[in-house]
Amino acid sequence: MYSPQFTAESSSNGMLERDFTVGGIPGVLWSSASHAADRAPLILMAHGGGNHKKHPAMSGRAQRLVTRCGFHVAVIDAPGHGDRPRTAHDEAEIAELFRARAAGEPEGPIVVRYNDHLAELAVPEYQAALDALQEIPEIGTGGLVGFWGINMGTAIGVPFVAIEPRITAAVFGQHWPDVLAEKAKQITIPIEFDLQWDDEHISREEGLALFDAFASKEKSLHVNSGKHKELPRFEVDSAVRFFARHLGGAVTASA
Amino acid sequence: MYSPQFTAESSSNGMLERDFTVGGIPGVLWSSASHAADRAPLILMAHGGGNHKKHPAMSGRAQRLVTRCGFHVAVIDAPGHGDRPRTAHDEAEIAELFRARAAGEPEGPIVVRYNDHLAELAVPEYQAALDALQEIPEIGTGGLVGFWGINMGTAIGVPFVAIEPRITAAVFGQHWPDVLAEKAKQITIPIEFDLQWDDEHISREEGLALFDAFASKEKSLHVNSGKHKELPRFEVDSAVRFFARHLGGAVTASA
Repeated sequence: MYSPQFTAESSSNGMLERDFTVGGIPGVLWSSASHAADRAPLILMAHGGGNHKKHPAMSGRAQRLVTRCGFHVAVIDAPGHGDRPRTAHDEAEIAELFRARAAGEPEGPIVVRYNDHLAELAVPEYQAALDALQEIPEIGTGGLVGFWGINMGTAIGVPFVAIEPRITAAVFGQHWPDVLAEKAKQITIPIEFDLQWDDEHISREEGLALFDAFASKEKSLHVNSGKHKELPRFEVDSAVRFFARHLGGAVTASA
Repeated sequence: MYSPQFTAESSSNGMLERDFTVGGIPGVLWSSASHAADRAPLILMAHGGGNHKKHPAMSGRAQRLVTRCGFHVAVIDAPGHGDRPRTAHDEAEIAELFRARAAGEPEGPIVVRYNDHLAELAVPEYQAALDALQEIPEIGTGGLVGFWGINMGTAIGVPFVAIEPRITAAVFGQHWPDVLAEKAKQITIPIEFDLQWDDEHISREEGLALFDAFASKEKSLHVNSGKHKELPRFEVDSAVRFFARHLGGAVTASA
């Protein structure tokens, strides 16, 4: 067990941003600038495919979680993403995805297969990151921990949460049930799940099948009209309220 | 066109409650106790089957809409409900529903048929109530109007909203698609729609079919685990935020 190695620190808009590495994996930890040392729940997030730990979708969610709920928020780069090198296998799979897209062929089979590969690498990395983050006093062992990942973040998050008893609430969404449904059946914590009604890649039946697979007694599905990339911004606010309900943070402003 | 006849007035928990009748139909109008005379959007609500205009589900929603958003909120008793007499037809249908329930037979066919009958009576009553309420200056013509009705409130609300251009946002849910789906196809305003994943009366396919039928460009479906009567309380807060987004009220507190 080792603490994260902090490598850089900056502050803006009420949020302290600390870059770290754990076993060589680069990550970021966001906390309230004025209460960074306060013990508070942690939300672990996983970014989407082709993105990275500080993508605006990540920092935007963190801003809300930190300033409205006082949570700590951490993300690590997925294998082959962000500040991490791509392998020849990564390059080949990405080339295959771009070829299928250009040819108008379904992306699903390639994304499912490649994300499954990335998840196998990423799950132990997320476990090590959580181990390390719990070594710092403002997070600590025994504190409440949530998980939030959509798209590839769900491909990593479902197998991670399925075997990680420290996670007590999770937000997932927008992925195919292949591979993941069997793992979702092992998940019993409260979940909120997003899917798009007019997703051009994931059919309604596929999206609903993954939601249905979760064994959680408390689960909510949020479906919105629109295509794959049109998940409405207000679902971010909904997820923040979901974590506030389940991890006990007070939402201090809402939209 | 005539104004509502106000028959009683009381105030509690920051909310002014005014009983009224329109053409003999009893209703209630809730407003902010401190800003009752201020012009603000109106939310018309319809209660569920077997309930009435002042059922706690109605006054609880009104409390949130009034105190958080500053909206005016009105409900009228449905035919055969609350302070309105039951006809022999009402009595026969209710007896038939109780008989089916006791015999363990599906309630759907009876509820669908009876609610359709009630909706035919209620739609012109809702139009008359809206006409009358718009005669009072704090609501006025040209103001924004939302509609909120679940269960029987959806059976009345879908045909009402389908022909009522003054409604600009609506929350529906938990009804069968028979009868209603054709009318939902005429509705293009933003909607939020609730259904229960383990509803013992309305199948998933039926619930999803009604959601799917709405022609609205912006529509959101909220599915929660649980049986018909277990719609989570937090969906009330979600609906309040939906109306705040679409009718311009400021949510001043949230949970």
